[in-house]
Amino acid sequence: MNDTVNRQILLVKRPSGMPYESDFRLIQSPLPSPDEGEVLIQTRYLSVDSSMRIRMNDRNTVAPPYALDAVVPGGAVGTVLSSRSPLLDTGDYVAGMFAWEDYSVASAKNIRKINPDLAPVSTALGVLGIPGLTAYFGLLEIGRPQPGETVVISAAAGAVGTVAGQIAKLKGCRVVGIAGSHRKVRYMLDELGFDAGINYKNPADIRASLARACRDGVDIYFDSVGGEISDAVVALINDYARTVLCGQIALDNTREIHLGLRCQALLHRRAALIQGFRIAQYADRFDEARGQLAEWLTAGKLKASEHIVEGLENTPKAFLGLFRGENVGKQLVRVC
Amino acid sequence: MNDTVNRQILLVKRPSGMPYESDFRLIQSPLPSPDEGEVLIQTRYLSVDSSMRIRMNDRNTVAPPYALDAVVPGGAVGTVLSSRSPLLDTGDYVAGMFAWEDYSVASAKNIRKINPDLAPVSTALGVLGIPGLTAYFGLLEIGRPQPGETVVISAAAGAVGTVAGQIAKLKGCRVVGIAGSHRKVRYMLDELGFDAGINYKNPADIRASLARACRDGVDIYFDSVGGEISDAVVALINDYARTVLCGQIALDNTREIHLGLRCQALLHRRAALIQGFRIAQYADRFDEARGQLAEWLTAGKLKASEHIVEGLENTPKAFLGLFRGENVGKQLVRVC
Repeated sequence: MNDTVNRQILLVKRPSGMPYESDFRLIQSPLPSPDEGEVLIQTRYLSVDSSMRIRMNDRNTVAPPYALDAVVPGGAVGTVLSSRSPLLDTGDYVAGMFAWEDYSVASAKNIRKINPDLAPVSTALGVLGIPGLTAYFGLLEIGRPQPGETVVISAAAGAVGTVAGQIAKLKGCRVVGIAGSHRKVRYMLDELGFDAGINYKNPADIRASLARACRDGVDIYFDSVGGEISDAVVALINDYARTVLCGQIALDNTREIHLGLRCQALLHRRAALIQGFRIAQYADRFDEARGQLAEWLTAGKLKASEHIVEGLENTPKAFLGLFRGENVGKQLVRVC
Repeated sequence: MNDTVNRQILLVKRPSGMPYESDFRLIQSPLPSPDEGEVLIQTRYLSVDSSMRIRMNDRNTVAPPYALDAVVPGGAVGTVLSSRSPLLDTGDYVAGMFAWEDYSVASAKNIRKINPDLAPVSTALGVLGIPGLTAYFGLLEIGRPQPGETVVISAAAGAVGTVAGQIAKLKGCRVVGIAGSHRKVRYMLDELGFDAGINYKNPADIRASLARACRDGVDIYFDSVGGEISDAVVALINDYARTVLCGQIALDNTREIHLGLRCQALLHRRAALIQGFRIAQYADRFDEARGQLAEWLTAGKLKASEHIVEGLENTPKAFLGLFRGENVGKQLVRVC
């Protein structure tokens, strides 16, 4: 790699439905240089996340769409190569919203310094990053797990699901994970200690499999998927059940109207709740959550599930892989 | 009326879909007599409520089904004719879960004594009864109204909706009521001071009417209806919107699977909430709520909307009328 060249990945076409590699292009640019208050960062790990898909549309939804023919923004961990800010020094490990590129320039005040001795730096994008925080606040604040309750997790082998399920286990719950392959189910059972796992692609009847796995009904549904899987789970909710709406990956790539089971009648009968949230709502408690998650991680009570692809040039491939269900745990790209 | 005869209305057939008068039968029985700890009550007002429909099915849902060929249970206000309990005296006004009959015997400890000087006794079944409490806790605890917010209420001219809308006004909200006739819309606007009203049977396009009435979107949806009306409202929810699931009358009479808009994707994008509840969850705060509602009532800030049908024999007719949208406010039967 020539260190005076900055490889960057641009979004060159807005996907319609599933994204393709041809929606992205790798270009070579000159090394950027930091202004006053900024730092130059060398990317170490890049995060790819299914929630990025929605910002590739031209509609303004949760956040403004990504610009076309511009570098794709993305969470990343890197090291400071040069600093023009008193807040950060050369050599510091940092995490922040950088971009799909070898080198980024960013304002020091939007950057979080991380301690490489506390945990592997890649965890700043997973267990100790947005996915971990999402699992933590979604499960604990909306799900409010009680010992003995049954927690169903969709996309359970993903970046958020692996953490949510492990926290639910730490809280004394029975955890049933739903994922899209036998390999993922085995991982949840063997590596994460979940109580039951369902491969939604395998059983002829997801409803029957779920009913068998949730003989006492469902108290908490931590949902990152939506669609028919959710219809099946909602049918099993108990009185006062809580559904944490973490994502709706089943719907991100469709432009269809979401027709299916209207859940309201069941929610009404069960006096149950469904709630969406934004992680920014809990921003003033991120430190508290990171402290707790790091403590569990260090004590070996929480496993950092990561799926790492090598090379910046493979970032689009890693992103597409999310929708084919290739990753177990947090999908990362190791850049250097 | 012969006062040694007790007219009683039985459920003789479980309705399939919409109930009919032929599902009920009026019989004459001897006057019941109270045992130790019980009182004999002469019914003054009977409550009929759409939520009773679901208990006419043979499935166990929120509560066990009503028995067939037995008197229909129902909320009522009456006077104590004779008492075998130290808790109540002859002449006391009482409210409780009695039945569709002229005279009831009930255990004194399940009966609430009411003060006829505080408010007309019929309000014990409406504003100061379960409908008022449902509006109070649903709106305030789940809806959490803030001044300036837009509150949409379905079945807005009903027993609960009229109270929920008035409380929302008292909390400084903009209130948009949805009801099924021009007369009801006029009532909401002229008598209850709602800001906008929509007759869902009239506009060709409920979505367009709603969008015009809710130019700033919807912050709270107090929903007693469900179905397509709810689909239209959910499409307009703002960030952090709350939907209070009070009832799903649109679905009570159908056995179809509730196919329609899956709301989860929108809830996720808007970080919004839908929550069902049972009024019993708030039982330890009923006195507080009744005190506040009575205060508003006495101060003229809250209007008791009542729709009164005369004669026990017309109770089934009054009940069926609920599903034809005949009532404005709480539907009551004056028995004597």
